[in-house]
Amino acid sequence: MNPIVSIIMGSTSDMKVVRAAAEFLDEMEVPFELLALSAHRTPEKVAEFAQEAKGRGVKVIIAAAGGAAHLPGVIAASTTLPVIGIPVRSSNSMDGWDSVLSILQMPSGIPVATVAVDAAKNAAILAIEMLALSDEKLAEKFSAFKEGMKNKIIKANEDLKAETFKFRVL
Amino acid sequence: MNPIVSIIMGSTSDMKVVRAAAEFLDEMEVPFELLALSAHRTPEKVAEFAQEAKGRGVKVIIAAAGGAAHLPGVIAASTTLPVIGIPVRSSNSMDGWDSVLSILQMPSGIPVATVAVDAAKNAAILAIEMLALSDEKLAEKFSAFKEGMKNKIIKANEDLKAETFKFRVL
Amino acid sequence: MNPIVSIIMGSTSDMKVVRAAAEFLDEMEVPFELLALSAHRTPEKVAEFAQEAKGRGVKVIIAAAGGAAHLPGVIAASTTLPVIGIPVRSSNSMDGWDSVLSILQMPSGIPVATVAVDAAKNAAILAIEMLALSDEKLAEKFSAFKEGMKNKIIKANEDLKAETFKFRVL
Amino acid sequence: MNPIVSIIMGSTSDMKVVRAAAEFLDEMEVPFELLALSAHRTPEKVAEFAQEAKGRGVKVIIAAAGGAAHLPGVIAASTTLPVIGIPVRSSNSMDGWDSVLSILQMPSGIPVATVAVDAAKNAAILAIEMLALSDEKLAEKFSAFKEGMKNKIIKANEDLKAETFKFRVL
Amino acid sequence: MNPIVSIIMGSTSDMKVVRAAAEFLDEMEVPFELLALSAHRTPEKVAEFAQEAKGRGVKVIIAAAGGAAHLPGVIAASTTLPVIGIPVRSSNSMDGWDSVLSILQMPSGIPVATVAVDAAKNAAILAIEMLALSDEKLAEKFSAFKEGMKNKIIKANEDLKAETFKFRVL
Amino acid sequence: MNPIVSIIMGSTSDMKVVRAAAEFLDEMEVPFELLALSAHRTPEKVAEFAQEAKGRGVKVIIAAAGGAAHLPGVIAASTTLPVIGIPVRSSNSMDGWDSVLSILQMPSGIPVATVAVDAAKNAAILAIEMLALSDEKLAEKFSAFKEGMKNKIIKANEDLKAETFKFRVL
Amino acid sequence: MNPIVSIIMGSTSDMKVVRAAAEFLDEMEVPFELLALSAHRTPEKVAEFAQEAKGRGVKVIIAAAGGAAHLPGVIAASTTLPVIGIPVRSSNSMDGWDSVLSILQMPSGIPVATVAVDAAKNAAILAIEMLALSDEKLAEKFSAFKEGMKNKIIKANEDLKAETFKFRVL
Amino acid sequence: MNPIVSIIMGSTSDMKVVRAAAEFLDEMEVPFELLALSAHRTPEKVAEFAQEAKGRGVKVIIAAAGGAAHLPGVIAASTTLPVIGIPVRSSNSMDGWDSVLSILQMPSGIPVATVAVDAAKNAAILAIEMLALSDEKLAEKFSAFKEGMKNKIIKANEDLKAETFKFRVL
Repeated sequence: MNPIVSIIMGSTSDMKVVRAAAEFLDEMEVPFELLALSAHRTPEKVAEFAQEAKGRGVKVIIAAAGGAAHLPGVIAASTTLPVIGIPVRSSNSMDGWDSVLSILQMPSGIPVATVAVDAAKNAAILAIEMLALSDEKLAEKFSAFKEGMKNKIIKANEDLKAETFKFRVL
Repeated sequence: MNPIVSIIMGSTSDMKVVRAAAEFLDEMEVPFELLALSAHRTPEKVAEFAQEAKGRGVKVIIAAAGGAAHLPGVIAASTTLPVIGIPVRSSNSMDGWDSVLSILQMPSGIPVATVAVDAAKNAAILAIEMLALSDEKLAEKFSAFKEGMKNKIIKANEDLKAETFKFRVL
Repeated sequence: MNPIVSIIMGSTSDMKVVRAAAEFLDEMEVPFELLALSAHRTPEKVAEFAQEAKGRGVKVIIAAAGGAAHLPGVIAASTTLPVIGIPVRSSNSMDGWDSVLSILQMPSGIPVATVAVDAAKNAAILAIEMLALSDEKLAEKFSAFKEGMKNKIIKANEDLKAETFKFRVL
Repeated sequence: MNPIVSIIMGSTSDMKVVRAAAEFLDEMEVPFELLALSAHRTPEKVAEFAQEAKGRGVKVIIAAAGGAAHLPGVIAASTTLPVIGIPVRSSNSMDGWDSVLSILQMPSGIPVATVAVDAAKNAAILAIEMLALSDEKLAEKFSAFKEGMKNKIIKANEDLKAETFKFRVL
Repeated sequence: MNPIVSIIMGSTSDMKVVRAAAEFLDEMEVPFELLALSAHRTPEKVAEFAQEAKGRGVKVIIAAAGGAAHLPGVIAASTTLPVIGIPVRSSNSMDGWDSVLSILQMPSGIPVATVAVDAAKNAAILAIEMLALSDEKLAEKFSAFKEGMKNKIIKANEDLKAETFKFRVL
Repeated sequence: MNPIVSIIMGSTSDMKVVRAAAEFLDEMEVPFELLALSAHRTPEKVAEFAQEAKGRGVKVIIAAAGGAAHLPGVIAASTTLPVIGIPVRSSNSMDGWDSVLSILQMPSGIPVATVAVDAAKNAAILAIEMLALSDEKLAEKFSAFKEGMKNKIIKANEDLKAETFKFRVL
Repeated sequence: MNPIVSIIMGSTSDMKVVRAAAEFLDEMEVPFELLALSAHRTPEKVAEFAQEAKGRGVKVIIAAAGGAAHLPGVIAASTTLPVIGIPVRSSNSMDGWDSVLSILQMPSGIPVATVAVDAAKNAAILAIEMLALSDEKLAEKFSAFKEGMKNKIIKANEDLKAETFKFRVL
Repeated sequence: MNPIVSIIMGSTSDMKVVRAAAEFLDEMEVPFELLALSAHRTPEKVAEFAQEAKGRGVKVIIAAAGGAAHLPGVIAASTTLPVIGIPVRSSNSMDGWDSVLSILQMPSGIPVATVAVDAAKNAAILAIEMLALSDEKLAEKFSAFKEGMKNKIIKANEDLKAETFKFRVL
């Protein structure tokens, strides 16, 4: 079994954010790998990883980083695969602003598909949406998931009924 | 009894913020409804709600949401009723800045009456002010409430007297 | 003829922003007044205005100000009428941020219905939405206006057809 | 010929930004459509578009909007296709911050792949990267383009040689 | 004994910040008063206070407020006394930014002498510096205080000696 | 004639901002001096100036600077006179944010009375308010000036009458 | 033994941040001194320190400060030695923004080499990099340290293996 | 002649900012090279450059970039030489904030000595200060330059004398 998605994090302290991405790929039954690579400590490993990912069968790369978050952009520089960036609000970041801006504001030619701060599950969903373009079975699984989200709201409204006010009309 | 105000929240986790709006409507004896609707998970329910609200006798809509807070604007798009938006500072938001900007900065033609971050009580007061334009009894009740606020300051100054300093002049 | 809407600006230099509100009220045939009042230069006039507005038949107040924009809040303090605030991005403001925050972030009890930076037309629309709650004829006029906005998009798409690209599918 | 990419803009004034996306799709010979749709003026058209896009053969949607930029998120709510969002720095926006935050900070379950402010070409590149996952010919074309970017730097260094300083070492 | 400095706060919840100002005035033996006044709840009391302060012998006014912090500016509007503003980082504020901007960015003609967020002691020091211009005894007391601050640094360096490192040179 | 107010600027390029302070002191007939001193280029001159100012009869110091604006704070460190800081939005500054924060956020013990960005006239007014505490004649002159500001608003409303709209009520 | 690096802090409360710099210099066996000096409380001591540092054999100065953080810039004004600034996110700062801007945005002629918020270890590393330019033995020690950082990532990936998911490929 | 300083820019459009660095090195007679290298378009060239710089005799690297400015950090990752970063406020950047944060907020272990936005001359000065640690002749030249800056202020005060006001004391 080859990994189809690579999840890369800049530091293992990002694992608590990244876990949600792994869990969603598990739910969708998509093989993935999970690696720590640092754009700054092991730059040559990052380059090597990025250059070889496509050849190893990887189709989408998810990269999470905080602060001056170069990892997603540096990977994007060395691959033609789509790269999804997760800005991490680590204790070292300026409340996430640095993470967002250094992932989002990539120069012309090298985009990173940026998701919300700490939004690892959304990164995985975006990966699934890309893969589902050419995988009908996955597309169906994902549609079912998306349909399921609506039920949460129905349930939420059920729960809200417990909130009683004198002038509330149910 | 028909609801005159609709309080809509994007997620039941916003209930802890929204509660203050419901409580104030209770205090003013204005019938209201309380619903969870997601601009992103059940968009067609939101559209349906917005299109039908006026016909059901609703006069003002209060919508609370956080992060990329589209709910108030999306509702405003499908109704001619005034829509009041509450930016929620949820754990997912950039300290409330995203919630504020994505509610406040609506394009020409589709305003949302935005209140302060998490200011659900103020949203309800604004709704009362609108309803009181054509409801003399409510106008009186609200005037009494507003008058009452002044007493809090009088009491506050009483409390402050407990603070003793050598050179304080009472 | 009594004014039903009061448009107040902190300085006549705000007239270039505020004009769009007056024009929309004209279009909707709603009588209004247009005044310059300064929360800081003539505070007693502002208080007097706010206290008397309701008695003179005014139903909604629109107030525009920039920088440390106290005018809308100070008016709201002395009336039970709904007050709509327009943050003005004047040359003295911090690119509009000060104007937004000093209008939006009102304390509990005294809301200001804030619209987008410089969004005077949206302020007028919000006023119309409030007045239309008890004025069926105005409600119809406004519905027609809102319906008309859709045609702009149809026309916009017509215009876009002029953009020709080799691989564009029309 | 069916469009494979949809480029949607909130207002035709965004065309000057969006053009770069259309031009890159032309360069890559990917059929696309170009439409103006407003999340706020014609919400039902947006919903209809989003629900039907996949059935019409569209594979990726690019949506550009400014200010309280709801369009990309609202489209993402009604489709399982990947949606790429372009934050536009329009004259109405808070220097782009509102556009960025209201596209980027989407809630869990409904991601939008956000690119840099006004970065329409990068949005198109991202779309190509997604399509190239299952289109070998396109993948090759795109690899050639990416390889070509390196030559720009070589040429840039040639140009820089014209800058003469006394202590510059060539 | 008449108060020479008035310390005004917008809400008694600001007392925990304001206390440091009162304590410093105590230390300098300057008679002061301590009041809660709300620009929004009791605007006429604020105006009355501001208009009468000078006549009662008050020389400097210190006003603390958070969020859309209008209190210092509204007081400044109705007096020719110098007004010192303390931006309070209350739980309702946008991390202090709204408090700072709505106190600092006053229009031409009505300055507020703004100090750092929550810097009540500095507000009192500024008041002392103003009073000392015409009170030689106070000037001396204050000079002694300022001189004393230097000793803290000497002591701090003594304390730092406890930090031992192998290569530290003492 | 000895100067009573010192106006200090960090660079002569700030003169275009600072001029308004000098003009207002002229109007109030207060002798002042006007100097360029740099906290970074001539630190010992700044220290010397600050230490000697009081002895030379100076009562209030106004200091203007942009970017990492240390000048007001550095002067405040070496004098017991009140120091008023003007944050300048120079071409080198981050739109004024750096200038504001590096003047406003002074540590405990060393306040700078900060005014709005580029608000030199307000700095001069604040100086007058301080001096007027012990100069009855100046107090009267300033009261007359403040009274005069009200007339501007009366005139502004006259001017506004030229704005004619069909539904405007005069 | 003379100190080669001076570590200066504005207040002993910054010691918890600064410690990491001292520890790294210890690790690299570089003699250093550790002092508290305040740009605002003991300005003449700071000037004296800065003017004499070079003569005492100091080669690099590291200065840490928070809020309106003038210390690094004020030191840089009086020495030709390189000064490294650490912006400290103290409880008085606006979440570090004031500390960053008042250290970073120095005027032309007087640079401060700024590192990330609270990044004392990086300040020490930067000092080592400067010293290693003319100290071959130190250069080797530092190269070994930098090489060692790579092993952390290898170990991190070992640790990550403990994270098991059904579809994870190892 | 070997270059001792490398000036690297991410794009030749940065030359208008970077020129000031080259000019100052010329003035100080320090041999330098001037290259365009892109962290995203030619990542392997950047890595190669960074790994070989020290071997070629380069002692300090100055790198300028805008937007998601990864260039300085990526170079720092592959060298033990000190790297100075210049955040460029390009038309693509969020008014310089993205450039600053993605250069400044580097992770532990890999500092970049960051200077003010567009402050190329300060970057060169910082480089000179580092080189002067082991080059006495350069140290003297730089001291002379720094001394010369003081004269500018003297001349500035001469110029200011042309500003005449009635109450100005010269």
